[in-house]
Amino acid sequence: MKGFQYLNIADELEKLINTEVYPVGRKLPSLRLISLRFQVSIGTVLKAFVLLIDKGLILGKERSGYVVLRKSVLNVDLPQRSKTISGATEVRLSPVLPQISREEQEHQSFVSFFNAVLDVGLLPLNAIRRSLQHASRDLSGAHLLYEKANGNPLLRQEIAGRSFRWKGALSAEDVVITNGALEAVGLCLRAVAEKGDTIVLESPFYYGILQTIEALGLKIVELPGDTLSGIDLDQLEQVCEEHRVAACVLISNFNNPNGAMLSDQKKQDIAAFARRKKIPVIDDDIYGDLHFDTERPANIKSYDADGWVMLCSSFSKSVAPGYRIGWCAPGRFTEKVIRLKALTNVATASVVQLSLLQLLNTGAYDRHLRKLRPELHKLMLLTLQAIEQYFPVGTRMSRPKGGLVLWIELPQGVDAVLLHQKAIAGHIQIAPGTLFSNSGAYTNYIRMSCSNLWSKRIEQAIQQLGNMIKDQMMKNKN
Amino acid sequence: MKGFQYLNIADELEKLINTEVYPVGRKLPSLRLISLRFQVSIGTVLKAFVLLIDKGLILGKERSGYVVLRKSVLNVDLPQRSKTISGATEVRLSPVLPQISREEQEHQSFVSFFNAVLDVGLLPLNAIRRSLQHASRDLSGAHLLYEKANGNPLLRQEIAGRSFRWKGALSAEDVVITNGALEAVGLCLRAVAEKGDTIVLESPFYYGILQTIEALGLKIVELPGDTLSGIDLDQLEQVCEEHRVAACVLISNFNNPNGAMLSDQKKQDIAAFARRKKIPVIDDDIYGDLHFDTERPANIKSYDADGWVMLCSSFSKSVAPGYRIGWCAPGRFTEKVIRLKALTNVATASVVQLSLLQLLNTGAYDRHLRKLRPELHKLMLLTLQAIEQYFPVGTRMSRPKGGLVLWIELPQGVDAVLLHQKAIAGHIQIAPGTLFSNSGAYTNYIRMSCSNLWSKRIEQAIQQLGNMIKDQMMKNKN
Repeated sequence: MKGFQYLNIADELEKLINTEVYPVGRKLPSLRLISLRFQVSIGTVLKAFVLLIDKGLILGKERSGYVVLRKSVLNVDLPQRSKTISGATEVRLSPVLPQISREEQEHQSFVSFFNAVLDVGLLPLNAIRRSLQHASRDLSGAHLLYEKANGNPLLRQEIAGRSFRWKGALSAEDVVITNGALEAVGLCLRAVAEKGDTIVLESPFYYGILQTIEALGLKIVELPGDTLSGIDLDQLEQVCEEHRVAACVLISNFNNPNGAMLSDQKKQDIAAFARRKKIPVIDDDIYGDLHFDTERPANIKSYDADGWVMLCSSFSKSVAPGYRIGWCAPGRFTEKVIRLKALTNVATASVVQLSLLQLLNTGAYDRHLRKLRPELHKLMLLTLQAIEQYFPVGTRMSRPKGGLVLWIELPQGVDAVLLHQKAIAGHIQIAPGTLFSNSGAYTNYIRMSCSNLWSKRIEQAIQQLGNMIKDQMMKNKN
Repeated sequence: MKGFQYLNIADELEKLINTEVYPVGRKLPSLRLISLRFQVSIGTVLKAFVLLIDKGLILGKERSGYVVLRKSVLNVDLPQRSKTISGATEVRLSPVLPQISREEQEHQSFVSFFNAVLDVGLLPLNAIRRSLQHASRDLSGAHLLYEKANGNPLLRQEIAGRSFRWKGALSAEDVVITNGALEAVGLCLRAVAEKGDTIVLESPFYYGILQTIEALGLKIVELPGDTLSGIDLDQLEQVCEEHRVAACVLISNFNNPNGAMLSDQKKQDIAAFARRKKIPVIDDDIYGDLHFDTERPANIKSYDADGWVMLCSSFSKSVAPGYRIGWCAPGRFTEKVIRLKALTNVATASVVQLSLLQLLNTGAYDRHLRKLRPELHKLMLLTLQAIEQYFPVGTRMSRPKGGLVLWIELPQGVDAVLLHQKAIAGHIQIAPGTLFSNSGAYTNYIRMSCSNLWSKRIEQAIQQLGNMIKDQMMKNKN
């Protein structure tokens, strides 16, 4: 049994966490103290800690100790698989969105769970300042002329070089720099689809891309998604038999909003499908770098054999939205995308590209990510736990393995738009589920971002939301 | 006669310039020396100098003296008024353009008269560096979140405040910041026209916008233009009777390529026309700040009474192309343009906006412009003179009062695309006229940028071009 002693230690520690002897946010005693307390070696305690880290219960910070992230008891189910929505429809987005966006801009003092965006406190402000200073020093007149339409060659090289992390093999020539991922997706769509064409995507899906699709006059078919495994390949095949499909748009890792991550097998199958059917697949892997597990997950492009997969991504979610640097690797459509990019805005601003290049090639980006990822994981677990505590029984939640958002199914009958209105009155913002579909579905769903630095105020806001939901349920009963 | 003595002095000096006693580029003797030589007061010499400056023959530099710009004899006619081109056509751009653009990118060591872009030596590099350093110092986390879709409020205020210079009265809310003027024009077009709609524009017209129109699937009608006065209003009216026109796109000041500037009366009439016919007019006033006369000219928006004029502009031609900061004031279509901007790339990078704001509100931009404008004027006059000297008799040239380019009509029978190919072989780049129309016209026209710092190499390249043209004419004869 000696070899498994660390399991007993881990169990003991887990109990102490669940009974709140060591509540969430508290530091655990040092390795040394625990080894004395349990009369085992420091190595054994360390093994127990690693187990608890793997279970997501504690967070190890070198030198500064181990912090409790969450209790292991979480009695909340996953959201249900969304239903099939058949027929290609023109996108007519929920009329609530423009209003919400305006409120979002106007009330920046609200507690906002609306935007999938890093808290200001999580941005690498000093590294960015340094990189800008370096960029301004390195700036030559040549940098201030028109940048190449596909972007700074050194920056493209850096991005391409990083593709080995997701099992890709891009070269600098495969990459096109854009003003953010939304522009990348828009350019890819314009390269392969014309007004009136049909696009397939997972349901629920990010409203920003839905709006872009609307602006381009494209139709969509929504494929039912699942918070764990994403779309179903058989259904994808079937839809593509029933409709003349110009492209699929997917988010292979940590889908926004439902958090789904496609398995490697499914990614591989979709790449093969794209090739076989000659249907371009646009993979918006914008959250891939924000994985909570140790390894950077693959994406669909990782398995792209002959250029039918168009990968899009950006640094908006991992560095700073204000940078507006995204990119795509549009495979066989690269030349067309570059041409459209040139005709849209000639090129992306060279100064920002230089500054991002600095962040990447000095290692500042990777150092930032190493700190950011466990921090985001912790924030998500804290949010999960608070929702479990304060939302009514019957609430279901996604368990994403990365990214910034939770997808929450409220008990049937709860009206998320009404909840949103109540929340606004209470100076809280959430994203009602109807935004994430063209079908009117998800009336009892909300998306909440988990990227606010944790505070009493955040926890209270979640409690308030819970009370609002319970109020609504009471009223519905009467 | 005493009061008009300065006219005689001016005549005397003009003769000395034309007979090359004081050749182009040479400093004139000091005020003091000339007053001694002609036995008149320094004030009288100064009045003569002002006259010569007004005639564009000399350039006055405070403290550093007066330099000869050009001789007053310029025996070159203006290009002929372009012919009416009837019928709305889908844009199918000259197949030569993609090839030319690639060559342009690949051979940056060539002498290039191709791009309408400032010479690296004319960019305010140090001011830009300083502004970036300030921006990086002032940078807060909030700046790094998503910028408002319509742009930084302070920057919009600065731009709006400058509208009084062109007799406009914009407020910050009228302005939308974009990634350059081409994006601004594209967004304005998308706001008012759908695929298949017809756009009216002046012929010849900037190929970049022609390509954008092509990418949007729009048709065009080309109105004949004139290098002095631009389009004819009666013809505009007539075309709009014959076609259902979704919008007009014009460049009211220093049209690219033919240099035309609309008169204030015509600007006013076009604004009234837009209002009367309810046809949006997009005015791409991107060169307006590069006027050679003392006053900043008005544009069509100056006379816009109720929002049918959509003004576009940028700092690419006056500060640096790599900044990619443009803007538009889309009048009654502002909300739609902001929405399209948000769906295209969310917002323009905040850091670059901050840096440009610095340039504007510290006065660095205006100081730069005050130096830049006479410098560009001088370069244009030098180019005019060299072309007169080296190109064959029968060459005709525009005389723009601002901007960066000359529009040159070569003797009939000269093939500008062939000339372009010869020039490339001689490591020189020009823009053949066929790029500037969808009609196949302008086969014997070229556009040449005048924004290269003057050097022996530049002059020799113009001489080489002249010889190539003469060679072609000889071969044509045989």
